Order: sequence, then C-alpha cells, then structure tokens
Amino acid sequence: MFTGLSAFPLTPLVDDTVDLPAFERLVGGLDVAGVDSITALGSTGSYLYLDRDERRLVARAAVESAGATPVMVGIGALRTSQVQRLADDAQEAGAAAVLLAPVSYQPLTGDDVLGLYTDVTAGLSVPLVVYDNPGTTRFTFTDELYARIAALPNVASIKIPPVPADPADAAAHVQRIRALLPEHVTIGVSGDAAAVTGLEAGCDAWYSVIGGLLPEPALAITRGALAGDPAGHEAAAAASARLEPLWQLFREHGSLRVTAALAEHLGLATVPSLPLPLRGLDAAGRARVATFAEMLDADSELATT
Amino acid sequence: MFTGLSAFPLTPLVDDTVDLPAFERLVGGLDVAGVDSITALGSTGSYLYLDRDERRLVARAAVESAGATPVMVGIGALRTSQVQRLADDAQEAGAAAVLLAPVSYQPLTGDDVLGLYTDVTAGLSVPLVVYDNPGTTRFTFTDELYARIAALPNVASIKIPPVPADPADAAAHVQRIRALLPEHVTIGVSGDAAAVTGLEAGCDAWYSVIGGLLPEPALAITRGALAGDPAGHEAAAAASARLEPLWQLFREHGSLRVTAALAEHLGLATVPSLPLPLRGLDAAGRARVATFAEMLDADSELATT
Repeated sequence: MFTGLSAFPLTPLVDDTVDLPAFERLVGGLDVAGVDSITALGSTGSYLYLDRDERRLVARAAVESAGATPVMVGIGALRTSQVQRLADDAQEAGAAAVLLAPVSYQPLTGDDVLGLYTDVTAGLSVPLVVYDNPGTTRFTFTDELYARIAALPNVASIKIPPVPADPADAAAHVQRIRALLPEHVTIGVSGDAAAVTGLEAGCDAWYSVIGGLLPEPALAITRGALAGDPAGHEAAAAASARLEPLWQLFREHGSLRVTAALAEHLGLATVPSLPLPLRGLDAAGRARVATFAEMLDADSELATT
Repeated sequence: MFTGLSAFPLTPLVDDTVDLPAFERLVGGLDVAGVDSITALGSTGSYLYLDRDERRLVARAAVESAGATPVMVGIGALRTSQVQRLADDAQEAGAAAVLLAPVSYQPLTGDDVLGLYTDVTAGLSVPLVVYDNPGTTRFTFTDELYARIAALPNVASIKIPPVPADPADAAAHVQRIRALLPEHVTIGVSGDAAAVTGLEAGCDAWYSVIGGLLPEPALAITRGALAGDPAGHEAAAAASARLEPLWQLFREHGSLRVTAALAEHLGLATVPSLPLPLRGLDAAGRARVATFAEMLDADSELATT
C-alpha cells in the first residue's frame, strides 16, 4: 500500500456541500484503473476545509467505492484531540491507513510536532503516513525529526516534498532520508512534476495529485519509472512530458485549482467545485486547461486507433 | 470601540475543554480595569483551535462577563460558509463587532481574500475589523487590497502588523495606509513591543495581547502614547520598557506561549492551558516568566507604598 501510485482524489463540492456522487465516481474510476492505493481527504481532497461530519461521510464513501483498492484517509486538524477523533472516524470507516500533516496556525516547534505524532500514533490500529507538505503547513522537518517520528509505532511511510531536479542530487537526497528511517518505512514523493525524478531517485511511492483524476498517465509514469530499465525510463519521461502543460499550470496556480478546473471541464465536478474562499481558475487559465484536455483526448484517440 | 486599548484575552483550556470560569475571570478583570474594548477569540484566544460549539460558548461568556465594555469576537475559519456561521453565532451572542483574518491552508490570492470579505461583510449587522496577521495567516495584503476591503460596508478598522521601529518610518507607514482608507476606518497596531511607536505614529488603537492579561500597564502605555505630549510619551515609553523582558520572550517564543505561561504562573489558568499540539514554555522560559512576574510585583508594591 505504501509503494507505487497513491491517487489523491478531489472532494468536489456542490452548493457548499460535498458532492458525494461525483466523489464516488472519481474513486470508483481509480479502482478500475488499478492504482495501488487511494488517499481520500489529502490536500487535493480539501480535508482541512471540511468539518468532522463531512469528513466521516467522505471517508465512508471512499472505502465503499474503492473496491479492493486500499484507502488511506487524511486526518489532519489544528488540535491534537481533533486529529485523534478524526483518526477514530477514519478507522471506523474502514481506512487501511491514515495520513497526517502537522497543520498549524501558530507556528509549530519540532517538539510540538513530535508530540503530535507521538500522541496520535499511540492510539492507532492502522499504519500512518507522515505528510511533509511545507507549501500548506509552512512547517519544515529536520532530519532529526524525520528520524524520531519514523521510529514511532505505526509509522509506515513519509510523503516528502519534491526532490531536486537534477537526478544525481535527487538520488543523494533520497538516500540521505532513507538512511534516517527504519527499513520498513517507505518514502513517497509528491509534487507531480517531480514524480519521474523522485521514483528513479529511489522513492518507493508517488503520492499523486493528478493520479486522482487521470490515473492512466499517472500509472504509466509510475510503472515506467519503477521498472528500472531504459525502456521504462523512456516511457515514464514521455508520459510526464505530455503532461507538461499541466505541470506549468500547477506552478502558476497550484495543483488544487488546476485539477479542480480540469475535473470541471471533464464533467466530473460541477462549477464551482472548490470550497470558498478558494476561487477557481480565471477564464484564461480555464482555456489552457481546455486546450490541454483536447490534446490529451486527441492523443488517446491516436493510441487506440 | 475601534480606538484606544483593545485587550485580547486568552481562552485557557483545562483537560482539553474550555476553562470557562478562568476565561470569565480574565474578561471580568479587563472590564474592571477599564480597557476600551475586549476582543475574545483572537489569535491569543486560540480561536482557530476551537470548534463551533466551543466558540459560541466563549463568545457568550465574553459578552456576559464584560459588563459595559464592548466585546469583539474573532470569526476566522478556513471556509467562507464556516465564517458566516461563526458571524451569526457571534452576533447572536451579543458581539458589538467581529474580527476576521484571512486564514488559509492553500495559499490565498488577493481575489480569494477580497471575495471572502465581500461575502462576509454583506451579511453582517455589526462592524468588522480586518485582521492582517501574516505571522499566522502567511497572507500579505497589498495596498490596493487594503483599499478595496476598507471600502466594503461594515468595515470599521484594520489591525495591522508591527510598524517599523524608527518613529519617522513608522509615521510614514501609517500615513501611507491612512491615505488608502475611508475616514471612518481606524488603524490599530499589533505586535505589543511596537505599541508605543505605532500609537505615536498615528494608529488609533492597540490590538493588544498583553492587554488581555495585564491591562494596567497596557492602559498606561495606551493613554500615555495617545496623549500627544512629552509627559505622555515618557510615561508610555517607561511602561513599555518595564515590559521589555516580556517583549524579549515574545520574540523568542511567540506571544501566545509566553502569555499563557504568565497566566499559569499568576494562577489565572491551569497548566497546561494551551491546546495541544502547542506545548507551553520549557522550564528555562518559565523561570524567566517567573522572574518577570516578581519584578512586576515588586514594582507595583513600590508604587502603592
């Protein structure tokens, strides 16, 4: 479950409530596509914008719609006791694992974060993925903190920020983190544009935004990059290069807004599907998303004829 | 209400629930001391760590314990609809005004923030204070955004981050902001160590952390700095200088952790009073807080003998 492609679906809203049918369609599609795991209520799933009842509903719907694919559920919240309640809810819903980022309002110290993971892992009966996402949490893990948290019971994987772009630097970076962790703890890369480099640098998993909406190209990237041979590398690099217009939009607008606009364009979510105050892309951004979708469509028609 | 000293009390917890008697004692003390307004559920009041029921309870307790002193209530939340519900709750509780920071998980754009304030102010029947607190929200207001938000209905004041340390720079800074705002919108300084400089630079109010726990020295600073004469300046500067050990601790540990430790030391809150994962000060920090409290105590005995 902590290797290969973990797909992070959106949680689309309609009229400021969770669009459960749309969510279930997304999750069902990921199961059919054959992703290795599904992570509901990640950053892409807008977890921190939803209240406890909504998150319980989404966690249940994810498990029910995922078939045999294991489901991880994000449990991040500002207060430790809230995280513990969300962990209980996720486990009751049938989550195979949970995902936890050190969310903050007041800047957190290393001791705060260690205490959070210590308190939460002590009460778990499923594995936990440590979610290092400085772009949203603004918390920076030190090597020492990685090592101390990875040694806690039930910690199974660490979702790291994008690796350096240079392959040799990336390999050294992953090797350095690997040396800090017990053998059973896997490393997953995030930052979709860095997926090929991250997997080829030794990451075990790709915690993927776009994998939650376009699982086929994400699987092509994952399988190719993990093959460990030149043909695999070529296939992964080509699949990632085709998504370059999307990566460029991610750099400009963040992956969530772009992925939501693409889901809306594809008819998989209703406009607007993001929780306000987050506004979707403007008209120019949406036009670029539409152009990308047409290109993708033309490519797959070529591939099947 | 949007001038003078607005005191921000802590919301102490005990066993992970709101310690209402302790909170009511704090608020009652502020009323007796004669602060100009009380802002419950500011950053110092840990608003974002509390759920809706807890915040409703705290808002009601604040209004009930504040006597004739007007009460403002913080209504920040991640999702616009949550903010709107909290605004309703605050108004039902009897809040004379509300305070709103653009809290984020996904980084917000200027359009997101303008939309948030537009949507929220449209439904208010009390005034709103714009809470510019980049240390916790990581959002930076532009001058243009200040101007557009200040022109919205019901906007009464802007709580700005610390002003520059140099008096001339501070005056120019406040003057520049003042020129962007309608005449009825006041400017309040935050960052307690900058209070004297901010008020003397032309701010109308001090939105004060320490004013929520030690209202007397905060009132001495406010009254002196707003007097606009040399004697007032001397008194304000001397009162602020006496608190320098506290300002130094604020710089090192953040104002919330230090103020909570001081409240705990003074027996006004039970250890630990902060919501986990926030850990209180370590032993060395607490020792410095205790030394400061003894100094303060000795000073006030001198003053009354």
